[in-house]
Amino acid sequence: MGHGLGGLLNATFGNAAELIIAGIALSKGLTNVVKASITGSIIGNVLLVLGFSILMGGTKYKEQRFNRTAATSSVISLSLAAIGLIIPTVFHRAADRTPGGWSPLVEQKLSLGIAVVMFLTYFCMLGFSLRTHKHLYRGAGEHEQTGRQWSRSKAVIILLIATAFVALLSEFLVGTIESVRDSVGLTEVFVGVIIVAIVGNAAEHSTAILMAMKNKMDLSVGIAIGSSLQIALFVAPVLIFLSYAFGRPMDLEFTLPEVVAVVVSVFVLFQISSDGETNWIEGIQLLSLYLILGILFFYLPEPAHTAP
Amino acid sequence: MGHGLGGLLNATFGNAAELIIAGIALSKGLTNVVKASITGSIIGNVLLVLGFSILMGGTKYKEQRFNRTAATSSVISLSLAAIGLIIPTVFHRAADRTPGGWSPLVEQKLSLGIAVVMFLTYFCMLGFSLRTHKHLYRGAGEHEQTGRQWSRSKAVIILLIATAFVALLSEFLVGTIESVRDSVGLTEVFVGVIIVAIVGNAAEHSTAILMAMKNKMDLSVGIAIGSSLQIALFVAPVLIFLSYAFGRPMDLEFTLPEVVAVVVSVFVLFQISSDGETNWIEGIQLLSLYLILGILFFYLPEPAHTAP
Amino acid sequence: MGHGLGGLLNATFGNAAELIIAGIALSKGLTNVVKASITGSIIGNVLLVLGFSILMGGTKYKEQRFNRTAATSSVISLSLAAIGLIIPTVFHRAADRTPGGWSPLVEQKLSLGIAVVMFLTYFCMLGFSLRTHKHLYRGAGEHEQTGRQWSRSKAVIILLIATAFVALLSEFLVGTIESVRDSVGLTEVFVGVIIVAIVGNAAEHSTAILMAMKNKMDLSVGIAIGSSLQIALFVAPVLIFLSYAFGRPMDLEFTLPEVVAVVVSVFVLFQISSDGETNWIEGIQLLSLYLILGILFFYLPEPAHTAP
Repeated sequence: MGHGLGGLLNATFGNAAELIIAGIALSKGLTNVVKASITGSIIGNVLLVLGFSILMGGTKYKEQRFNRTAATSSVISLSLAAIGLIIPTVFHRAADRTPGGWSPLVEQKLSLGIAVVMFLTYFCMLGFSLRTHKHLYRGAGEHEQTGRQWSRSKAVIILLIATAFVALLSEFLVGTIESVRDSVGLTEVFVGVIIVAIVGNAAEHSTAILMAMKNKMDLSVGIAIGSSLQIALFVAPVLIFLSYAFGRPMDLEFTLPEVVAVVVSVFVLFQISSDGETNWIEGIQLLSLYLILGILFFYLPEPAHTAP
Repeated sequence: MGHGLGGLLNATFGNAAELIIAGIALSKGLTNVVKASITGSIIGNVLLVLGFSILMGGTKYKEQRFNRTAATSSVISLSLAAIGLIIPTVFHRAADRTPGGWSPLVEQKLSLGIAVVMFLTYFCMLGFSLRTHKHLYRGAGEHEQTGRQWSRSKAVIILLIATAFVALLSEFLVGTIESVRDSVGLTEVFVGVIIVAIVGNAAEHSTAILMAMKNKMDLSVGIAIGSSLQIALFVAPVLIFLSYAFGRPMDLEFTLPEVVAVVVSVFVLFQISSDGETNWIEGIQLLSLYLILGILFFYLPEPAHTAP
Repeated sequence: MGHGLGGLLNATFGNAAELIIAGIALSKGLTNVVKASITGSIIGNVLLVLGFSILMGGTKYKEQRFNRTAATSSVISLSLAAIGLIIPTVFHRAADRTPGGWSPLVEQKLSLGIAVVMFLTYFCMLGFSLRTHKHLYRGAGEHEQTGRQWSRSKAVIILLIATAFVALLSEFLVGTIESVRDSVGLTEVFVGVIIVAIVGNAAEHSTAILMAMKNKMDLSVGIAIGSSLQIALFVAPVLIFLSYAFGRPMDLEFTLPEVVAVVVSVFVLFQISSDGETNWIEGIQLLSLYLILGILFFYLPEPAHTAP
């Protein structure tokens, strides 16, 4: 019971910054920005954070190992999330061809249904990683365990303060980015998918690289894939639920480039994680894919229908 | 020689119900219903039957193992079938852009060609699993061997009677489903893909779950993947051939949602089967995907061009 | 340093025939033919050469093994190349929906960017396979080492002569094929993807099969996947760069059937290579896919916009 609650708290506060920023954007109706930051967080963690970690770890160690079963469970859940992003687009195209046609209302219902399934799957994953199969994740949790000598109340207070600080800082950063964007001439989607993802994942980034250089690949892989998973299966559904609370229902229909970016990232991640070992070329491969996707989003013109 | 014939008989009679129902539907020109039931049988076995089996087995055993090579061979063949369903859609889109344009006749020829390749691949798979590499499938066949003490003629007669019975029952069930559908207001494709698949695979379903709970995962995985494989590489091509006999040629072009459903199911199946072990979260993941696809087909509006 | 140079020389001369033919076609503005031959070389090596090798090897040996890590590294790089071919098509579709619309110039810039990333990834792969992790490729290089007793200058001269000979021969073959094509009535894309690929890879083909029958699967897999990799990550980018030199910039946007063909080939290749062992059914599966794709390209009508 305690572990489940701890996991939920961790997931909530660990993504508090993302949730707060996205919540503010949602309340303003900026659903495109919210979606772009979801996409960016997923591919940022999978490609950039993990890619750099594997590359840096690979410069020190010829081969590095991690628990394959633990990694694969997370990657399959991430695949589910990627599929959850494909389905609304498929629905839109298929419904468009019928006499009744496509309607935003049905799209929202469909998205809500998928969000509920993803949300439930996330809690099953928590039960799997924190309870029934926590031995698989022991390597990943080891470091955290030794660091946690605080009492529960102290920990919660510190988390709250840190969260508030991160939220403030994020708000400031986003403001700065916005002004830089306008002067440099970058599109909204490029900023959301590429730049916010780099800035917003700085903490995960530095920790994951440090752990990789200490040859603690379980932890490094756990942070990178775990963060993506939390965004995809926890933050995204919560944002859908929140959008209903704000009276501006958001659907899960992403743009074609976003869907393709997530799908190919998860596919290459699966190829790299399925053998339970890494070397530097796999880091290069993840970073190359990040570069290719960055080029795509850089040249992508601004769409007409920016949210009101 | 005996084994090959046995395998062929088994494949034919094991899918006799599906073949007879689909044959009747084909003779009435209901190609959309036939295609929906092919899709439903594939994803029903891969996601629902296997998902439940892994979940139920996983409640009793922490880890369960099966022969990876045997499973992977079947999954790759299933991938071929999924690709065989993608190709006619790709052809349609590409041909539409040429001056000559797309024609139903060429689509049928293309489909017939693919069906022949799939049919031949199926017989190679039979040779592989029943002759040259039957040792890989020993775990899966063990149980069946002990049960088979009947003479060949007796077995064939019992198979024929059982088949006739199943066919009658299926016809009755489909009739009931049709009337329920009309009163509840479900679409044809939802009934075909989701409901018929649940009812039609009840036998595979119960056996696969029982075997999983007895920790005979080779058998459980073998039934679920094997059934999908027979539908995809044996039943589907035979139905194409039959459609020519009925003078109403059917092509292999499925709707976009059906193609996506099969492709993502096979992809997740590959991720789950490639390590040769299962745990309960993998069952949850397969069932989650089934739910997501169920939601898609539930909200999908009825297309205009229902077959005459 | 010597190894890197050797690898570069090998990659350049090993693909000299492809480069020269494609270069001539490029200078005439026949970009569609060039793209079709890139597609054909990739799927020809992955499906036809590897498929035949595994099948022939499988008729002599029940199971054959190869180094999984080495193969997977190459397959992941090949996945990157496949993604590099998807992105320009995705860009085209997404940009078409924006007010500014799609423009050939931006498409070329995007393609150039992707080509540079692919080119750099190729050199990283060279460093990986020839320097930091050459022990993984030892099985693959063994045979070649014993054959190379020539001095460097002699080797380079022989390579140059052989290359010139191959180029002449290729030119002749292509001419013959062209005239046969016209009399038989095959489309340009079928000839480029299927026929040129069979003829152009004859050398790789025979060597790979011979090695498979001697149970040297590392070498066989290395040749087939390595050739595809060189085409995708070295030849294709070089052709993009060359096209700028000729003043007729080529982009990386392939037709939908070509993109699908490469993606599904790489996916099935990954499924087959991820366990590090092969048997005859895997050869059949690769060849079946080749047949299915061959049928697709055979029935595909000639597009209107053949290059000037």
